[in-house]
Amino acid sequence: MRNTYSRQMKLFSPSLLVLSAVLNILAVLLLIPALLGAVLTTGNESAFYLSAGLASATGVVLGAMGYKYRAANLQPRQMFIITATAWLVVPFFGALPLWFWEHGVSFTDAVFEAVSGLTTTGATIFVGLDSTPADILLWRSMLHWIGGMGIIGMAIAVMPFLSVGGMKLFRTESSDWSDKSLPRTQQFLLLMVLTYSLLTLACFLAYSLFGMDIFNAINHAMATVSTGGFSTSDSSFAQFDSLPLHWVSIVFMILGGTPFVLFIRLVRHRQTAIFRDAQWRGMLVMLTVLALLLTLPALSMPGETLPWAFTHATFNIVSVVTTTGFASADYTLWGDFSIAIFFFATFLGGCSGSTSGGIKTFRVQLCFAIIREQIIKAVHPNAILKRQYNGSTVSDEIVASLVGFLFLMAISLTIMTLLLSLVGLDLVTSLTGSATALMNVGPGLGAVIGPAGNFQPLPETAKWVLSMGMILGRLEFLTIIVLLTPAFWRR
Amino acid sequence: MRNTYSRQMKLFSPSLLVLSAVLNILAVLLLIPALLGAVLTTGNESAFYLSAGLASATGVVLGAMGYKYRAANLQPRQMFIITATAWLVVPFFGALPLWFWEHGVSFTDAVFEAVSGLTTTGATIFVGLDSTPADILLWRSMLHWIGGMGIIGMAIAVMPFLSVGGMKLFRTESSDWSDKSLPRTQQFLLLMVLTYSLLTLACFLAYSLFGMDIFNAINHAMATVSTGGFSTSDSSFAQFDSLPLHWVSIVFMILGGTPFVLFIRLVRHRQTAIFRDAQWRGMLVMLTVLALLLTLPALSMPGETLPWAFTHATFNIVSVVTTTGFASADYTLWGDFSIAIFFFATFLGGCSGSTSGGIKTFRVQLCFAIIREQIIKAVHPNAILKRQYNGSTVSDEIVASLVGFLFLMAISLTIMTLLLSLVGLDLVTSLTGSATALMNVGPGLGAVIGPAGNFQPLPETAKWVLSMGMILGRLEFLTIIVLLTPAFWRR
Repeated sequence: MRNTYSRQMKLFSPSLLVLSAVLNILAVLLLIPALLGAVLTTGNESAFYLSAGLASATGVVLGAMGYKYRAANLQPRQMFIITATAWLVVPFFGALPLWFWEHGVSFTDAVFEAVSGLTTTGATIFVGLDSTPADILLWRSMLHWIGGMGIIGMAIAVMPFLSVGGMKLFRTESSDWSDKSLPRTQQFLLLMVLTYSLLTLACFLAYSLFGMDIFNAINHAMATVSTGGFSTSDSSFAQFDSLPLHWVSIVFMILGGTPFVLFIRLVRHRQTAIFRDAQWRGMLVMLTVLALLLTLPALSMPGETLPWAFTHATFNIVSVVTTTGFASADYTLWGDFSIAIFFFATFLGGCSGSTSGGIKTFRVQLCFAIIREQIIKAVHPNAILKRQYNGSTVSDEIVASLVGFLFLMAISLTIMTLLLSLVGLDLVTSLTGSATALMNVGPGLGAVIGPAGNFQPLPETAKWVLSMGMILGRLEFLTIIVLLTPAFWRR
Repeated sequence: MRNTYSRQMKLFSPSLLVLSAVLNILAVLLLIPALLGAVLTTGNESAFYLSAGLASATGVVLGAMGYKYRAANLQPRQMFIITATAWLVVPFFGALPLWFWEHGVSFTDAVFEAVSGLTTTGATIFVGLDSTPADILLWRSMLHWIGGMGIIGMAIAVMPFLSVGGMKLFRTESSDWSDKSLPRTQQFLLLMVLTYSLLTLACFLAYSLFGMDIFNAINHAMATVSTGGFSTSDSSFAQFDSLPLHWVSIVFMILGGTPFVLFIRLVRHRQTAIFRDAQWRGMLVMLTVLALLLTLPALSMPGETLPWAFTHATFNIVSVVTTTGFASADYTLWGDFSIAIFFFATFLGGCSGSTSGGIKTFRVQLCFAIIREQIIKAVHPNAILKRQYNGSTVSDEIVASLVGFLFLMAISLTIMTLLLSLVGLDLVTSLTGSATALMNVGPGLGAVIGPAGNFQPLPETAKWVLSMGMILGRLEFLTIIVLLTPAFWRR
């Protein structure tokens, strides 16, 4: 009995230690909105202090528990547990200030908002953002930014190691977790944090330069670079009546959906690999085609000019494909064709190794490569073909894990849609709500959760289902689902 | 120049010979409704005679052209051309009587109906079926029955040879087209026709036994065993207010969705392999679960009793999953949960090697097997696993062709939905219309094409898009798409 307990604790100890560190970092970060609240005398400081105290205290207790049973080496199983527990536990602490402050939302709503923030989904339950205190708004944006950092770290250092959904394709020296290369991985992650911060700073400066006030520039920089999508107004990005600001946002949403390793190479080795990367190019081509297809429908709106129609088309499709989720117009008014395009675009996603969610460009490209191979083999059954992507060989193992990813996605979408329909949501709302949550986009379709809508009116149960969906999609399905299987827990 | 012509003709000659044979068979079969028309003095005989004449004349001309350039051996490319041209050309001749008769529908509608018939989809543009002449009704049912025969022959003898969508898994001695085994294949196909006819006869007898009149029993037997779905009334199967008739239909729809090879083994070798087949069992489990899930929503309808609710639930889900498309109730009134279930069920399909369309049970099961493998590999990265399905090894090649199938399906669904939305159909109609056409089910969702609706009100363009979709899905996507690539036509 005792033996079992200590074995279980050893299994969980690394995740306890990671949680401890993350919660204490979160506690420190909570002091930033607290400070802002104190300066602006919003009266919300105590909510942030209390949240910080709870996060820190929990962190210390978990850390002490984990430290006692610490072990030298990480097993793959432990990597899954670390990743899953961090994403399942941290949102509850991120939610605390949103629940605690004077006009705090319900616990369910606070958790939904925190999950949506940390997973950089950007679906919101906040109504009346324009009159919401600055410290609360700042914390929402910070949730995006913190989450985005976690996602990139995970995409570079954890996922390829775990061979989830074909991510093995991106296995580099940085995803080697053996003792030998640990210092190199740590150095790489440090560089990642630096690059991510620099990109945010650049976005902030660009927004400021083109006329956004400092507070909005800070919030939107964090929500843009993390491909999050929380805004400071119920009208989202439509609050800014400026073409240049829209284009700054478009550029930084695209950079947010770019493989982060490419920036690091640019900074570190002055390699211009970014322009030769097949995935990045694929995303740009896709975005260009979709933006052009949508310009005509956007132009059909009364009083719309061509520059604005093209801008709205580009802005909103870039927002959905990079899974940011800002809206600069209600594109569901552009007609059935636009609605259908946005429906399918919800699934695409940006590049792997960015904060972007969705299927991701490389998986779509892999599927195309496999179809091409199938076509050649259909005509020449004995042809021997070498399967390549972006200069790497695509092994049969990667193809199998691609099937795994797509099928788990399809099953998750099915089950979530059925659950949402059980609480009375119609097909369009439950289907697009599931899709937008699983793909970490933000807006869905239909009257309630469309780009001009809000997740507030949904039933409580639906909010919990969607929150779970956001985490499931963020962790590329397998990372969560593996924990639900007996095989995982068997010795 | 002349050389190129003769090479092209050699490439097409087998398909011309096959078309010639099929059109002449069609011409003979057209005499059956003509005879019925003459007996009943409907006045439509001339429409059938004219159609038969045109089909036969065209067949003779094509046959003469093909015979001149006949070759001894078939290349894979020629198999694709045979399959595609047969399915693209024959519907036009099947459509003729529906266009020619006294109250004939438009050319577009006639082609839509013939494609829907031959692909055993069962979506109809006929309004006022209850007052439609018997000879026209019979021809619609015959289109199902003829199409169903073609589909089984193709699934057993052609598709595994072409390695389309993982069908290689079902490659048997019967799909060997070398000269040596051709007699065996021919014998096998003869046995197939016999079994298919016996099954239809059994269905007819069962319907008659439980009170259906002879004419309805003939029509519905053909529409059931072929998993087609055309009925003789606008109210589809709801015209029969009899529990036993519904259950006869349920049983024969399931048998229609059963791998045909299993029946042949049962007849020929008295093997009871059918009960041990993983795909067949998988389909039954799936159907049972779905029927039970739907019974409660069905029971919520006013005046519904438990036996009828269970019957309606079972009947309609079996109808959609086997891709028959009969409706015994408007299940879109059963609430959002039922609508969501029917939406996803549209994609499932019955067993491979039957007249059923859709993704098909074996592909769903393969995906599950791959996920299982992924989960084990996630925890034990170095585990060596043997991938098996129903006693056969699942090679990496089959996995790749599975990805090809699923992705081509997704692309087809996307493009078709976009095209339908361009002609002004809303998201639910264009999405479920595309799905029901590609999967060869029959009814979609929404006010127009739902189980209580009809495809008649759709714009002409939509009907052509849907017709193309039905053929595309019926030929498992690759068979058509391969013809659109330059690689296919390159020497």
